[in-house]
Amino acid sequence: MPTPASGYAAPSADAPLEPFSFSRRDPGPRDVAIDILFCGVCHSDVHTARSEWSGTLYPCVPGHEIVGRVRAVGGEVTRFAPGDAVGVGCMVDSCRECASCRDGEEQYCTGSGFVGTYNGPDPAMGGHTFGGYADHVVVDQDFVLRVGHDEAELAAVAPLLCAGITTYSPLRHWKVGPGQRVGVVGLGGLGHMGVKIAAAMGAEVVVFTTSPGKKQDALRLGAADAVVSKDADAMAAQEGSFDFVLNTVAAPLDLDLYLRLLKRDGTMVLVGVPAEPHQSPDVGNLVFRRRALAGSLIGGVRETQEMLDFCRERGITSDIELIPMDGINEAYDRMVRSDVKYRFVIDMGTLPGADGATVR
Amino acid sequence: MPTPASGYAAPSADAPLEPFSFSRRDPGPRDVAIDILFCGVCHSDVHTARSEWSGTLYPCVPGHEIVGRVRAVGGEVTRFAPGDAVGVGCMVDSCRECASCRDGEEQYCTGSGFVGTYNGPDPAMGGHTFGGYADHVVVDQDFVLRVGHDEAELAAVAPLLCAGITTYSPLRHWKVGPGQRVGVVGLGGLGHMGVKIAAAMGAEVVVFTTSPGKKQDALRLGAADAVVSKDADAMAAQEGSFDFVLNTVAAPLDLDLYLRLLKRDGTMVLVGVPAEPHQSPDVGNLVFRRRALAGSLIGGVRETQEMLDFCRERGITSDIELIPMDGINEAYDRMVRSDVKYRFVIDMGTLPGADGATVR
Repeated sequence: MPTPASGYAAPSADAPLEPFSFSRRDPGPRDVAIDILFCGVCHSDVHTARSEWSGTLYPCVPGHEIVGRVRAVGGEVTRFAPGDAVGVGCMVDSCRECASCRDGEEQYCTGSGFVGTYNGPDPAMGGHTFGGYADHVVVDQDFVLRVGHDEAELAAVAPLLCAGITTYSPLRHWKVGPGQRVGVVGLGGLGHMGVKIAAAMGAEVVVFTTSPGKKQDALRLGAADAVVSKDADAMAAQEGSFDFVLNTVAAPLDLDLYLRLLKRDGTMVLVGVPAEPHQSPDVGNLVFRRRALAGSLIGGVRETQEMLDFCRERGITSDIELIPMDGINEAYDRMVRSDVKYRFVIDMGTLPGADGATVR
Repeated sequence: MPTPASGYAAPSADAPLEPFSFSRRDPGPRDVAIDILFCGVCHSDVHTARSEWSGTLYPCVPGHEIVGRVRAVGGEVTRFAPGDAVGVGCMVDSCRECASCRDGEEQYCTGSGFVGTYNGPDPAMGGHTFGGYADHVVVDQDFVLRVGHDEAELAAVAPLLCAGITTYSPLRHWKVGPGQRVGVVGLGGLGHMGVKIAAAMGAEVVVFTTSPGKKQDALRLGAADAVVSKDADAMAAQEGSFDFVLNTVAAPLDLDLYLRLLKRDGTMVLVGVPAEPHQSPDVGNLVFRRRALAGSLIGGVRETQEMLDFCRERGITSDIELIPMDGINEAYDRMVRSDVKYRFVIDMGTLPGADGATVR
């Protein structure tokens, strides 16, 4: 027996988000029903709501930085109980059989591909999955995370579920730690988490930004220095001095400007996919220092839990601006202008009843 | 007291190579004087002789795949004695103080930069270094390699000094071994060595070539399979199945075609630097499988010795076509047409006296 749910959805690519009523599946034996307290607002939400990556199914309920409280659990669920603070990130299922799933790297699932928290296939209800801009969500226990932060921090924890893990995972995978210099390119939702986490891992962090005004913020977030990437002399002074560069920019870039920052054997990892290609990197910048250019996608469930625990132990949350649900369209416009420090989070207590909207 | 030397030099970018008389330094206490028996012909020789990378100093004596016999040693040389079979590769010196030099990765020297066997600075004689298209060479003992192959194999050992180490080094660095699938893109001088070495390391090797006619050769060299890269269906069948791809092509390529071959966490390494940039790789191909695109340059002295020993133990040499010194210009033209299987090697016994040429 599906349960009525209310949320906010984009009815089409060019219409603003509006109240929307739909249904969630009744929790199965392995499901956790979660009352959503907070949902972070990710750039992917905007791209998907507006079908900028194409392939969006409407109505589209975005949201994959979910923090809430367990409402009910299925009969086989042992790790969660009603009242627990929990999180849900970008995935709600995967094939569970391919090499990546077996390795706990569900984000790279090569079977069915992972099931997105929104805009993925929904075999239980038919159609596509609806995300976290909603009063509640029902998720298989294997894709539910335990949130141990203090009650007062829960809103600021929400962005860890995407921005946090997207930066934590490559920093861990490439073994960032004490004694290393790490560059973070771009100081936005992802970048500001990258700075906090890399600094907490013991690295000396330098932020590369196009905005001179962000320097003070970079230092406050834990960076040792900030360099304005348009300053050719300042950039040249940093060449060959970084072990790792975390590039969070999703707009077309001159990658060579940042590849040159790397020492021999250094890696620059891209976590954003630009709509238009980057300028082709100079092969010489790779060959003559054995540098690598890599990509990384969010992180697996196990690693997401590890990240949440890491952040809790070190008092790390996101810098957020809390907004009401009906402020989402203005927030999207401000995000596109990079006018947010550093993540919008929806206070789901402000969700209105979705009177008049169609119930699916 | 400099010693008279004879060789072959390009007098300018657009003139053929011709006999050339010059001088080598008298061996210092740490030097090894080597009578050159054989010198391989590398694509870099052509690019440099014709100044296709710009920066060539004339007259230009190319050649950095040198095998010869020790003629004399300086007073402090203990590791080599007259009569020893030895090799010299792409480097004859480096700063010896930077992190790369201290790590035995002299090819990435960030101090002075490594001193090229030709076209590098020559403080002893003034001007620039002259390479292996010559009767003899004088090299610091730290840049001389021990050659243990049988006498009859010495000509076919010469290309190991560049083509061999350029492919061995990345295969070792990225830990290629049994149980792995390795793609080798391009079956030329570098590629054919990559196939032999990767197969000897225990990997299952698949060659990707634009020439259907090279399939039989690929199998003979040790590949398990060969795929014609223009065959879209055959390429699609290989997607996501490789741990490592060694890309030896120096012409502009669609890198995505080969990045897609990689499994999650796979690396494609480029060992050639194209004159024009490659098509910019699709960031999604990196991000959605955490793949990496890297570069690699020859190898350090210690690793070059390791490679020579590895090849000797496994009976690996290059497939060569032995040419006389005066056949060099024709050989260059044939190389540019890829008409060589798989490396030209100059028999230095055919070097004529350099009558009439200027003695420096």
